[in-house]
Amino acid sequence: MYVGEVITPNDMNDGEASFPEFHSVYMDPESFAEYEKTGKYRDGTVLVKELSSVGSKKAPSGNGYFQGEFTGLEAAIKDSKRFKDEPGNWAYFSFGHKYPLKKEVSKNAAAACNQCHQDNAQKDDWVFSQDYPVLRAAAPKSK
Amino acid sequence: MYVGEVITPNDMNDGEASFPEFHSVYMDPESFAEYEKTGKYRDGTVLVKELSSVGSKKAPSGNGYFQGEFTGLEAAIKDSKRFKDEPGNWAYFSFGHKYPLKKEVSKNAAAACNQCHQDNAQKDDWVFSQDYPVLRAAAPKSK
Repeated sequence: MYVGEVITPNDMNDGEASFPEFHSVYMDPESFAEYEKTGKYRDGTVLVKELSSVGSKKAPSGNGYFQGEFTGLEAAIKDSKRFKDEPGNWAYFSFGHKYPLKKEVSKNAAAACNQCHQDNAQKDDWVFSQDYPVLRAAAPKSK
Repeated sequence: MYVGEVITPNDMNDGEASFPEFHSVYMDPESFAEYEKTGKYRDGTVLVKELSSVGSKKAPSGNGYFQGEFTGLEAAIKDSKRFKDEPGNWAYFSFGHKYPLKKEVSKNAAAACNQCHQDNAQKDDWVFSQDYPVLRAAAPKSK
């Protein structure tokens, strides 16, 4: 299910964003149901980040950023058995930042993805939950 | 189900965007399944637009626009019986651009929403499909 959107456009990042450009974030529904009860990311949680380019910056609805083409796909999986040596038990996978996507990938080195999550989001189980109103609204108040 | 995202931030629209600011667009799943087969919006299609503010413009992943709080909710419904006098048989509803949302709403006057869709998107059944890669990818080639 859909969790939320971030945009880091190339034109706001010296022409080359780390994650170009729209990021649509999805979560497996069973883990989201658990998250609604507990405010925690359960073992087995899968987060998927679908990347797409900026197609236009002007439309009848105003100036802004409008989606272009799909440009990449990434995933993060939390598994305390499979990824017991990874910080937070999260492993990160990139199917590439251009199409066609890779068909199979290995987990990235911790330094490539996890380090930034560890440095900036460790207090919330390595997830940047604060940037997604769906997650903030869904978490129980007792979190 | 989630269809896509547009952002028309206030700071790119003289401080006051017509649709502030992130627009998350959803479609009822049955109509989407039909759209995948035909590339058409069937009678009964419901499109929902959830609005949220810009929360931050800087994060560890780069400069950009990051979601803040929910700010509004709108819907468009295509129904050739209920809305036989509306252009394209689409009626538009706004639950407001601030919370708490209105609990009940009537359809907006055609001039408030439909006119802009008619002027700019009539060739694609009054929907701005071109701004949503999910819709472009889902439509059959024979469309």
